[in-house]
Amino acid sequence: MSINFVPNNIPEKTIERLSEYRRTLLDCLNKGITHLYSHTLAGIHGITAVQVRRDLMLIGFSSDTKRGYDAQVLIDFIGNILDDRNVMNIGVVGMGHLGQAVTQYFTGKRSKLKIVAAFDIAPTKVGTTVAGVPCYHIDEFQKKIKDHNIKLILLSSPTDAAGSFVQPIIDAGIKGVLNFTSKPLNFPEGIYVEDYDIITLLEKVAYFVKECELHSRKK
Amino acid sequence: MSINFVPNNIPEKTIERLSEYRRTLLDCLNKGITHLYSHTLAGIHGITAVQVRRDLMLIGFSSDTKRGYDAQVLIDFIGNILDDRNVMNIGVVGMGHLGQAVTQYFTGKRSKLKIVAAFDIAPTKVGTTVAGVPCYHIDEFQKKIKDHNIKLILLSSPTDAAGSFVQPIIDAGIKGVLNFTSKPLNFPEGIYVEDYDIITLLEKVAYFVKECELHSRKK
Repeated sequence: MSINFVPNNIPEKTIERLSEYRRTLLDCLNKGITHLYSHTLAGIHGITAVQVRRDLMLIGFSSDTKRGYDAQVLIDFIGNILDDRNVMNIGVVGMGHLGQAVTQYFTGKRSKLKIVAAFDIAPTKVGTTVAGVPCYHIDEFQKKIKDHNIKLILLSSPTDAAGSFVQPIIDAGIKGVLNFTSKPLNFPEGIYVEDYDIITLLEKVAYFVKECELHSRKK
Repeated sequence: MSINFVPNNIPEKTIERLSEYRRTLLDCLNKGITHLYSHTLAGIHGITAVQVRRDLMLIGFSSDTKRGYDAQVLIDFIGNILDDRNVMNIGVVGMGHLGQAVTQYFTGKRSKLKIVAAFDIAPTKVGTTVAGVPCYHIDEFQKKIKDHNIKLILLSSPTDAAGSFVQPIIDAGIKGVLNFTSKPLNFPEGIYVEDYDIITLLEKVAYFVKECELHSRKK
């Protein structure tokens, strides 16, 4: 994970948790639960109630009801913090298995974020659609980014090719990249990059499993 | 991300970075670069040289050569920390687009970690293989976990179904879970869980893009 700028005082981890709280609150509303205490929300997320209250204090949310937080009110409040007023358009670079999976997985999940275009070089992919999203040749990148008003790129190309997309992404004026490849990418200040590498995380989980086993054997 | 136990003194973030350093070092070796300075490694990863040296100090690695770190020596050293002596077997629960993508993406990438079995309920998937990995019915979970000596579960089921796999995973004696669903899962102490939710990360990147735009408009 690399942070090139922090535009205000809300910590990255709080932003992540707000997104997670909102999903839990939506889930609760669907089940007919309209109010939640901070300790209930904390329990679901495996953190402390103090952490939940601190996060909500940071965004200026307060609740004086004895029934806990009103789920719908809190959902709207978090939405005002996290979401753009307009829908934010996303482009996917690389429509291999991972790009296709993410496109299909994501479609319809969040109304304020929308995957609107994909890019690849393979003749079998260019000109097709996945979950209603058209796939263009990477040669059309600059034009289609502008046509579709794309603000955020999800990079799911083969790792070897990842570096070649850095300059086009900068040139297109993109300000946010979610990088699924195993290659750390150097973007200039002002572009927010989140690295999301599966192998790193699998290796990390595997390490803790191994340590846990060594530890039990020693006992 | 939830940490249920920390088996030794190496911080989680250091473990992640060690995995990333190793991948960069392997990449350098492939390009014929045999030695790297800490500031070179730091530059590639967008961190400080002090951070790199601190991480390597934590694992007891020191280098007195003026040519920088010997890539192969450091790769082996990191391997001794991260890897199990034997191959660690992984099971994938949920062979939708995401499960299939991860299985195909991962196959052959790391010799010490191996996806050996997948589980689903759909008749179109049970009995098939993806990238050489057999897909079993979830009813066979306990048996196949034992047969294949699986230590780690990668959970890529639909989010709604995620909760139903917690007890079977506990019963099977699994000690590590990489959770791709949008649902936070409560596992007991002693099971290491890494949540890896795409929507949370996309929302986070989108938030920073939005803030960056608001900030530029104000100028």
